[in-house]
Amino acid sequence: MGSTSLKIKSKAQDFAPNGSVGQATSTIRRTLLPAAAKEHLTLEGRLMNAGKIFQQNFLIRSFDVDPDYKVSIKAIMNYLQDASVNYRKKMGMSAENLLGVTPEMRTRDLIWVYRCMCIMVDRYPSWDDFVQLHHWFSTSGRTGLRCHWVINDIKTGETLVRASSLFVMMNKKTRKVCKLPEEVENEFKPYLTINAESIVENERNSCPKVETMNHIRTGLTAGWNDLDFNYHVNNSKYVDWILESIPRSPVHNQELCSINIEYRRECLKDDVIQSLSKVVTDEQTNHHGIELEHLLRLESGPEVLRAKTAWRPKSVCR
Amino acid sequence: MGSTSLKIKSKAQDFAPNGSVGQATSTIRRTLLPAAAKEHLTLEGRLMNAGKIFQQNFLIRSFDVDPDYKVSIKAIMNYLQDASVNYRKKMGMSAENLLGVTPEMRTRDLIWVYRCMCIMVDRYPSWDDFVQLHHWFSTSGRTGLRCHWVINDIKTGETLVRASSLFVMMNKKTRKVCKLPEEVENEFKPYLTINAESIVENERNSCPKVETMNHIRTGLTAGWNDLDFNYHVNNSKYVDWILESIPRSPVHNQELCSINIEYRRECLKDDVIQSLSKVVTDEQTNHHGIELEHLLRLESGPEVLRAKTAWRPKSVCR
Repeated sequence: MGSTSLKIKSKAQDFAPNGSVGQATSTIRRTLLPAAAKEHLTLEGRLMNAGKIFQQNFLIRSFDVDPDYKVSIKAIMNYLQDASVNYRKKMGMSAENLLGVTPEMRTRDLIWVYRCMCIMVDRYPSWDDFVQLHHWFSTSGRTGLRCHWVINDIKTGETLVRASSLFVMMNKKTRKVCKLPEEVENEFKPYLTINAESIVENERNSCPKVETMNHIRTGLTAGWNDLDFNYHVNNSKYVDWILESIPRSPVHNQELCSINIEYRRECLKDDVIQSLSKVVTDEQTNHHGIELEHLLRLESGPEVLRAKTAWRPKSVCR
Repeated sequence: MGSTSLKIKSKAQDFAPNGSVGQATSTIRRTLLPAAAKEHLTLEGRLMNAGKIFQQNFLIRSFDVDPDYKVSIKAIMNYLQDASVNYRKKMGMSAENLLGVTPEMRTRDLIWVYRCMCIMVDRYPSWDDFVQLHHWFSTSGRTGLRCHWVINDIKTGETLVRASSLFVMMNKKTRKVCKLPEEVENEFKPYLTINAESIVENERNSCPKVETMNHIRTGLTAGWNDLDFNYHVNNSKYVDWILESIPRSPVHNQELCSINIEYRRECLKDDVIQSLSKVVTDEQTNHHGIELEHLLRLESGPEVLRAKTAWRPKSVCR
């Protein structure tokens, strides 16, 4: 990773978040199953550690891999989101509501929105690999709920992906962020891990200097297939847009090893997006990889998201 | 379906294709498993009926459904393609080559390309449904290989989706279509169903009258995430583009019940596409649904595909 400025914790630390998840991590280790048992693994996910950890398995499909036969970063984001939705369903939240709205949230017209997301890929799984995901929640200050995910190779237990995100509450009518009401926190309490350190640290990205961003792609729009259940652009679509402006030349033989996204604004179907990128650490100064800064904004001006990505030489070239 | 001009066979017929698959269809019925057994079903797929049928199961994920919580037509196309790739892998074709190139094809620089595809949706499965897919091949004249798929509800055995496609051989260097060489046919022979009737009939679409197509969307392009292993635009991306030009008003309360696509040309990353549509049978003349004609073409003129879609009133509105 060289001089990357994304604060990524060491692998040894990742498996030992503080507090009540400590015990659970040894449970995670014990539940790694041999390859022969993979046919019998549940795909719908299950609660572990008295409900404080959710476990789900994924078989990597041919349509979830990129031209290098490795799972795409978009597919990884889909897996994380799917586990989060399934965990909330297991908690007894409305099964037909994929956004995990609790009864107390419904009363107050509150919804969850992504504030930031950080994904660190140690190794990309390939087509037909079977992976196991563990997911847990913790509170974050007075406004947010932090999600933590780890994806392991099911045969070896090797950590492949670590991710963390912050959700905040938004009033559906005013579209303003608000504090996490005590009543909603109480609904989540049985499932919350208190004082858990983040599996990956979400760092606030500094304000990007638009005039220095020299790789630009304009006219990006969302298709019908990119919308979520609120008819907003799905979280994972933003990653497609970020990738649209990356310069081909420095990243041709590199693979994404981490992405840190800070969401600033929702997008709707007919919004027209500009994607801007800048190489901040290139191969000249860092032989281990490069780093880029990214900005998505509406063509009319307002910022949609800021992001940083780090890239390393491809582990296996096609 | 009312007056649809797509020739869709009756459900009773679908389960009884001619020839050697006859026996297999009773095997299909016998292998429908009760819900309780679904955790134990293999997801990687398996050969049945001495290799002449391939069976694979899918759990419908939250990211494969549309805002109505029903599986998207794009996801269905991905499932069909995934089963086809996995079947060829089980046949012993190169596991790392998702395009199913046989040794004899490799010698002759031949690849498979889609010529046409017809999908008929009887009922859309929803998020968390478990479905079972059966897939078989037959020859089609001297140039092609026909694929047949049926997707069933795993609990009830109800037929949800029927599909058929025609692949032809193309020379990778000249990009010209050629006859199926006997040596390649021999490689497939153990898996081929002879004289099988198509599960759904692919009908050639008449040449669309461009000047009458009054719903137009311009400037469509493929993202990195839309490319296949040859760095061509993936087959299922075309469906996104078709949907981009459909008029909102007549189809707002309708759902797609069939799509018949005729592929005319490959697309690459930087191609700019126009999507054109026309309502040919509207709600005024047919209360059961509407039909549309579609055309995708490069902005520079050449035709990319022709398609027809049929729509019916939504089975369950959100």
